[in-house]
Amino acid sequence: MSKSIFYHAGCPVCVSAEHDILNLLNPKEVEVIHLGEDKTKIGDAEKIGVKSVPALVTPNGHVLHINFGASMADVKG
Amino acid sequence: MSKSIFYHAGCPVCVSAEHDILNLLNPKEVEVIHLGEDKTKIGDAEKIGVKSVPALVTPNGHVLHINFGASMADVKG
Repeated sequence: MSKSIFYHAGCPVCVSAEHDILNLLNPKEVEVIHLGEDKTKIGDAEKIGVKSVPALVTPNGHVLHINFGASMADVKG
Repeated sequence: MSKSIFYHAGCPVCVSAEHDILNLLNPKEVEVIHLGEDKTKIGDAEKIGVKSVPALVTPNGHVLHINFGASMADVKG
């Protein structure tokens, strides 16, 4: 099984959701990407369909937007 | 570990998210509740903090609203 990707930007909603997701899933199967610290990955995230963070991209490419921390515009800004 | 609860209402967004969640988590650790078919559970869901469906309530009581299918008002209506 390929990995899921958890995108976040360090916001409180993101951090809380990250803890929840890493408790629920096997942490070895989740790649965590902090878009605030690695802005070069924002383009990839948008291509996949990530519109806000936190978001979990499943191994089959579905985007699950979890609660709402920040829009991608906020992350870029 | 106690179970997570996945609340949904049969909407397309809900069904898609349900498949994704049951692929990611151990299905034995997720209780699925269809609020459209069992409206008596709507009050419980609202008390926990569910504001829209689909939503996953973690074993520690955090509510993860996943994408957006329908508001609780829609579910009641």
